[in-house]
Amino acid sequence: MPAVRRLKVAVSGLGRMGARHANHFLHRTPKAELVAAFTPDPKELAWAKENLEPWGVKIYQDFDQLLKHEGLEAVCVATVTTVHAEQTIKAIEAGKHVLCEKPLSTKLEICQQVLETARRNPHVKVMCGFSRRFDASYLSAYAATKSGSIGRPTILRSQTCDKYDPSGFFVEYAQFSGGIFVDCNIHDIDLALWFFSAESKALPKVRSVVAFGVTALEPDLAKHGDVDNGVGVVEFYDGQIAYFYSSRMNAPGQHDMTEIIGTKGKLVVNGNPTTHLLETHNGDGIQRDIPQNYYERFEHAFVEEARQFTDAVLENKTVPVDLESSMEAVRIGVALQESVRSGKKIWFDREGNRVDENGQARARL
Amino acid sequence: MPAVRRLKVAVSGLGRMGARHANHFLHRTPKAELVAAFTPDPKELAWAKENLEPWGVKIYQDFDQLLKHEGLEAVCVATVTTVHAEQTIKAIEAGKHVLCEKPLSTKLEICQQVLETARRNPHVKVMCGFSRRFDASYLSAYAATKSGSIGRPTILRSQTCDKYDPSGFFVEYAQFSGGIFVDCNIHDIDLALWFFSAESKALPKVRSVVAFGVTALEPDLAKHGDVDNGVGVVEFYDGQIAYFYSSRMNAPGQHDMTEIIGTKGKLVVNGNPTTHLLETHNGDGIQRDIPQNYYERFEHAFVEEARQFTDAVLENKTVPVDLESSMEAVRIGVALQESVRSGKKIWFDREGNRVDENGQARARL
Amino acid sequence: MPAVRRLKVAVSGLGRMGARHANHFLHRTPKAELVAAFTPDPKELAWAKENLEPWGVKIYQDFDQLLKHEGLEAVCVATVTTVHAEQTIKAIEAGKHVLCEKPLSTKLEICQQVLETARRNPHVKVMCGFSRRFDASYLSAYAATKSGSIGRPTILRSQTCDKYDPSGFFVEYAQFSGGIFVDCNIHDIDLALWFFSAESKALPKVRSVVAFGVTALEPDLAKHGDVDNGVGVVEFYDGQIAYFYSSRMNAPGQHDMTEIIGTKGKLVVNGNPTTHLLETHNGDGIQRDIPQNYYERFEHAFVEEARQFTDAVLENKTVPVDLESSMEAVRIGVALQESVRSGKKIWFDREGNRVDENGQARARL
Amino acid sequence: MPAVRRLKVAVSGLGRMGARHANHFLHRTPKAELVAAFTPDPKELAWAKENLEPWGVKIYQDFDQLLKHEGLEAVCVATVTTVHAEQTIKAIEAGKHVLCEKPLSTKLEICQQVLETARRNPHVKVMCGFSRRFDASYLSAYAATKSGSIGRPTILRSQTCDKYDPSGFFVEYAQFSGGIFVDCNIHDIDLALWFFSAESKALPKVRSVVAFGVTALEPDLAKHGDVDNGVGVVEFYDGQIAYFYSSRMNAPGQHDMTEIIGTKGKLVVNGNPTTHLLETHNGDGIQRDIPQNYYERFEHAFVEEARQFTDAVLENKTVPVDLESSMEAVRIGVALQESVRSGKKIWFDREGNRVDENGQARARL
Repeated sequence: MPAVRRLKVAVSGLGRMGARHANHFLHRTPKAELVAAFTPDPKELAWAKENLEPWGVKIYQDFDQLLKHEGLEAVCVATVTTVHAEQTIKAIEAGKHVLCEKPLSTKLEICQQVLETARRNPHVKVMCGFSRRFDASYLSAYAATKSGSIGRPTILRSQTCDKYDPSGFFVEYAQFSGGIFVDCNIHDIDLALWFFSAESKALPKVRSVVAFGVTALEPDLAKHGDVDNGVGVVEFYDGQIAYFYSSRMNAPGQHDMTEIIGTKGKLVVNGNPTTHLLETHNGDGIQRDIPQNYYERFEHAFVEEARQFTDAVLENKTVPVDLESSMEAVRIGVALQESVRSGKKIWFDREGNRVDENGQARARL
Repeated sequence: MPAVRRLKVAVSGLGRMGARHANHFLHRTPKAELVAAFTPDPKELAWAKENLEPWGVKIYQDFDQLLKHEGLEAVCVATVTTVHAEQTIKAIEAGKHVLCEKPLSTKLEICQQVLETARRNPHVKVMCGFSRRFDASYLSAYAATKSGSIGRPTILRSQTCDKYDPSGFFVEYAQFSGGIFVDCNIHDIDLALWFFSAESKALPKVRSVVAFGVTALEPDLAKHGDVDNGVGVVEFYDGQIAYFYSSRMNAPGQHDMTEIIGTKGKLVVNGNPTTHLLETHNGDGIQRDIPQNYYERFEHAFVEEARQFTDAVLENKTVPVDLESSMEAVRIGVALQESVRSGKKIWFDREGNRVDENGQARARL
Repeated sequence: MPAVRRLKVAVSGLGRMGARHANHFLHRTPKAELVAAFTPDPKELAWAKENLEPWGVKIYQDFDQLLKHEGLEAVCVATVTTVHAEQTIKAIEAGKHVLCEKPLSTKLEICQQVLETARRNPHVKVMCGFSRRFDASYLSAYAATKSGSIGRPTILRSQTCDKYDPSGFFVEYAQFSGGIFVDCNIHDIDLALWFFSAESKALPKVRSVVAFGVTALEPDLAKHGDVDNGVGVVEFYDGQIAYFYSSRMNAPGQHDMTEIIGTKGKLVVNGNPTTHLLETHNGDGIQRDIPQNYYERFEHAFVEEARQFTDAVLENKTVPVDLESSMEAVRIGVALQESVRSGKKIWFDREGNRVDENGQARARL
Repeated sequence: MPAVRRLKVAVSGLGRMGARHANHFLHRTPKAELVAAFTPDPKELAWAKENLEPWGVKIYQDFDQLLKHEGLEAVCVATVTTVHAEQTIKAIEAGKHVLCEKPLSTKLEICQQVLETARRNPHVKVMCGFSRRFDASYLSAYAATKSGSIGRPTILRSQTCDKYDPSGFFVEYAQFSGGIFVDCNIHDIDLALWFFSAESKALPKVRSVVAFGVTALEPDLAKHGDVDNGVGVVEFYDGQIAYFYSSRMNAPGQHDMTEIIGTKGKLVVNGNPTTHLLETHNGDGIQRDIPQNYYERFEHAFVEEARQFTDAVLENKTVPVDLESSMEAVRIGVALQESVRSGKKIWFDREGNRVDENGQARARL
C-alpha cells in the first residue's frame, strides 16, 4: 500500500470526455486516486462497471450521494454543458475542489453564480479545464512570450477547426452549445486572454467585438442562431487585437492553430499540423495526416491538466487557470455569437459595460 | 535581326519597381522590346543611362514625348501611385496598351475615370498589375479551385506582412499610400475577388466590411489615419467571407500567405515561407530564412506578368486581370481603411450602394 | 483495492534509463505493479528511497534476493550493458519474464547464451527493448509497409545522431558500448530487420557489410576502436540494402530518422524533427527546436513498450520483438564495427557464415 | 541596336537539354547572343526552324561548319554524352570557349584528353555544366560552409532520385550513360568535391570507394552492369566521408537532396522537396507536389549557369567549375560503378593510384 498522499477524486459524467477524465485520474495521474464516479446514463454505467469498478472505483447514480463519498476531496465535472454550473456550485458548497470542463456555462449570469460561490469558499480550488493551456507547445510559446522574446504581444490569431461530421451531430448539439464562438472559439478567446496578460497579469479589456459567419454545409444551424464557419475579431483597449476562425468542415481532420504576434517576433503553434512524424511519398506527392479530433490532438494536455490540478490542490497552490478569465472568455464568446446573429459590432467601455458606438451606456451584458 | 514580331514597350518611372519592370521587358520577356523609358528624376536618369541606353532604349524626361516615340505600342506605368491614373489615361488616349502598377489610384473617382477611358477605347488593352495572380503557387491554387477540387470557396484568409523598416520610410509614405489596407491588403482583396469568382466569373458582391488596427511601433502613422497592423473582414452576399491581416513589423522578412477554404478542402499558399530550399541545423535548433521583401518573394511573378501582358496584346486576347475587379479591390480597400479610422462597420446593398446597418440608403461611395 | 489482475514487476538498475523504466511501470502501465527494484549504487538507492519506497516498492541491493521477492513475475533489466545478459539469464532461470534493455550483449557468444536459455524456458517471455518499434510514427510506417502501400521495401536509410556532449562522457563509455554501430545504429539495424521482414516474417539474410568512420571531435575514441561519425551499409540477399549513419555531434539535439523506400513509394519517419508544434519567427528567420536527447524523443515509445510487454505476459501472447532478430541486430552491428576498424568489407553466405569475397568459408562469426 | 558587348554563342545538340540551353542563351542571358546552333537530327532541325531561326539564329547540320560561323566565340555542347568530349576538343582547338554538359565523358582516358587540350589552350575557357552548383539553395549552403558557420565539413550525404519512367527509356540509355553512379550521382560526387574543398580550395583525395545496388523494377539494367537503386560511399583521406543514394523509382517525382554535416552544424538542401509554395488539405490529409523532373527542379540553376559562364568569358575570369574537379567526379563515379559490379571495395593511395587493401600498388585507373 502506497504511503504517498494521493488526492481522492471523483468524476461526474462518463460520456466521451468524462470517460477520458476518469482514465486520466485513474491511470495517468500518480498523485490522484479515482475513488468514485457519477453517471445516470445506462450505457455509461455499463462502461463504468467494466472499466472502473474493477479498479476499486465506486459508481453513483445520484450526484448528491457522490458528494458524500467518504474522504472525497475533489470532483471533475464532465457532464453536459448545461449541468456544469449546477454541479460545480454543489461541489464547492460541499467543500470539494472542482475541475470543471469548459465552459462553466453558456450563460453569463450562471457563470457569475459559480464565481460568487467560489469567492465565498476561498479554501476550495475551482478551475475551468481550458486544456490548451496544458499543451507542451502552448506552454513553450507562453514561456517565450513571458520572457519578452517577441516583444509586446500585439496581435493574436487563433482557430479551432473540426473535421466535418456528416452525421450532423453538431447541428443537434447547437441548441445547447451556445454557438460556434462559445463552443469552439472559446479556447482561442481563452488563449488571447492568457497571452495578452502574460506581461502584466491583468486581463486585457475588451473594447469591441464583431463576428461573421456562414452555413456552408449545414443550413439547419441557422435555426439555433449558429453557423458552421465563423470569423470574429476582438479589439482590446491599449492596442491589442485578437482574431479568430472556427469551422465545422475541415477536410483532413482537426486543426487548431495560434499565432502570437509581438513587436519583435511571432510564435506559431501548430502552423504545420501533423498526427505523427510520418510523411508518405507516393504517386500523389507527399502526404501526411492530421489528428482526427480534438482529443487526438490534445490527449497529453488533458493528462497534464489533471496532474497540475492535482498538484495545485495537494500543495495548496493557485490553480493554473483562474476563474475570472474563464468567465471573461464566455462573455466574449457570447458577444461574438450575438454579433454573428445581429450583424452588429458590439462596444464596451473600460469597465466592461455595453455602450453604443458613440460610447453611450447600454445595459450591462 | 530577329524576324519575330515583338511588342514595343516603354516603361514610365524608373524607381525601385520601375527599374525592375524595365529589366523584365528588356531582358526577360522575349516577345517584348523595351524601346523607351521615362523619368524626370536625376538619379533614375543616371541609372537609365548606364543600364538602358546601351541596350538601345531611348530615355525621355517628358511623358508626353515618350508617348510619341515612333512605333511605341505599350506603356508600363510604374511611377508613384499618385500619377498612375493620369498617365494611364493619357496613354490609353494615345492608343497605347497599358500595364499599370497597382493601385490605379487610392481614390475611387479617379479609378472610375480610368475605367471609363478604357471603355471608350476598347481596342486598347489595360491591365492593373496584381502580381500575385502570376505567381506559380497562386496559379496552381486557382486551377485547383476552378476544377472544383475544394468544393465551393467559402472563406478566404490572406495576409501581407512586411519586414519592419526602421528607417520609418513607410510612415512618410503613408500620406500617399491610401493606408495599409489600400497599400498592402489590396493584393489580398484582389485574391478574394479572384478566387470567389473562380466558378461563376461574376465578381462577388460586398455586403459589409469592418477593420481594426493598431500602431504598435510607429505611432506617427496615426497622423495619416494609418496603422502598422491591420485586421479586416469583408463579408460578401451569398455566403462568402474574406479576412485579412497586414503588418509592417514582421521580424524575419516578408510573409504573404493565403488560405482558400472550400466546402471540401483547403488550399494554403505559402503557409511555410522560405527563401530557398535550405535549412540550417545548429546549436539554436533548425532555422530557415524567408524573403526580405516583396520583390524577393514575387520576382518570377512580375516576369510572368510582363510576359502574359505582352502575349495578351500580341495575340489580341483578354488581359488576365480585368479592370473592374481592380477598381473593386480599391473600393473595398478604401472602405476598410475608412472603417479602421471610424471604428464603424460599413454596409452595402447588392448594387454596391452604401447603406446603414438597417439597409437604408446612404450616398454611393 | 483493485480487483484487476496486475503483473508484478521489478526493475533492475536505477540509473538514467532504469529510473525511467521504474516510473513507467509504477505510474504509466496500469496493468503492471512495480513491486521491487534492485540497485547496488548508493546514489540510485537514495533516489529509490525517495521515489519508489513511498509507493510500496521494495528495494534490494542483491539481485538474487530480488528474484526471490514474493510473487514477482517479471523483471526489467536496465543495468549497464555488461550485466544485461547475466541478469537476464538468471531471471529466466528463476522463471521470471524479462524485458531487457538493448543490446542483450555486445558479444555474440553471450547473446547466444541468452537465446539458448530462453529456448530452454519457453514458458518465459523474453524481449529486448528496441524502443523505436513502439513509437507511434514507426508503428504507422510499419502498418503502411505491411499493407503493401509502398510496394516491396527495397532500400532503408536510417540514422541515430546524438547531440554533442562536450563532457566527453561517450568517450569513456566507448570501452563498454561495443562501438557506435552497436550502441547507436543498433536501433537502425533493428528497424531494417523489422521492415524488411514485414511481408514474409522471415529475417532478411545479410550478404555483406561495410563501414566507414571518422573521429571529427573526439580523437580519443580511436583508443577503443570507435569513431564519432559512422556510415555503414548492409547488403541483404534477395535485393535489399540498408544504409546507416550515426553521429555524436549533431548540433541542435537528437535526430533519428528513417526512410523505408519501396518499389511504389517511400515512408519517411522524422524527416522534419521538432520538439513540439512551435515555430519562432524572429530577426534570424524561422526557428524550431528538436529533442535534446533520445528519451525526450522516445518517452512515449518507452511507455508503450512497458505496456505491450505487460500485455504480452498477462495475455500469454508472443512478445512484439523476437529474440532472434535482437541477436541478429547485434551480429550486424558487431560486423559493421569490425569493418570500420579493419577497413574491410565483410561477407556472409546465406547461412550466416563468414566467407571471403570469393565466397570461401571463414570461421563463423 | 544594343551597343552592349554580348558573347556570341552557339549550341550544339538540340535534344531535350540542348533546346533548353538554346532558350537560355537566346532569351534569358542578356549578355549572350545565340548566333548559331547545330543538330543533325531532323526533328530537332524542325524545332530549330520554328523556334530559333526567326530570332536570327543560323542552323548548321555540320559541327565543323558551325565552328566556322563568323564571329562565334563560344559553344555550349549539349549533344549525347558520347560526343561531348570530341566536340569539346574540336571547339577548344578552334579557339572557342566551351560550356559542356556533364559528364565530359564516361571514360577517364577521354576526360584526360579534354583536360590536356584545355591545358594547351589556356586562353580558352572550358567548363563542365554541373548545374547544381548554380542553384540558389546550394549557393547559400556553400557560402555558409565557406564562412565556417558549420565548422569543418565532415560528412556529406547526397542523393539524386528520379521519378520512375515506365517507358523504360533509362534501361536503353544505360548502355551509354556509364551507369547510375556516373549518370545520376555524378552531381552528388561533384557536390562532395565542391563542399569538401570549400575551405582549402584543394580537392579532397579519395581513399576508398564502395557501392551497392539492386534492380528493383528493371532487371534488364543488369545487362549493362547497371542498377535502378544505388548506394555508394566515398572515403577521403583526412577524415571526410561522402555517401550517396540514387534511384530511378521515386514515386512522387524528382528528389535530389544534400546534407553537409560539419563539426558545428549541418546544412540541409531540399530536405523538404516541393514544387511550389502550395499545400492541399483534403480528406486524404495534407498533400504537396514535388518537381516531376530534373529540369523542373533546376531550371533557374541552368539559367544562372549560362549567365555565369557568359560573364566569366566576357570578363576573363576563372570559370566557376574547374575541369579538374569535373574529371575527378567522373573518376569517382566510374570507380563506384565498378564497385557495384564487382562487389569489391576499391582503394587508392594519396596520389590517386589504385592499390589493394593492403596499400600495394595496382594499375592506375
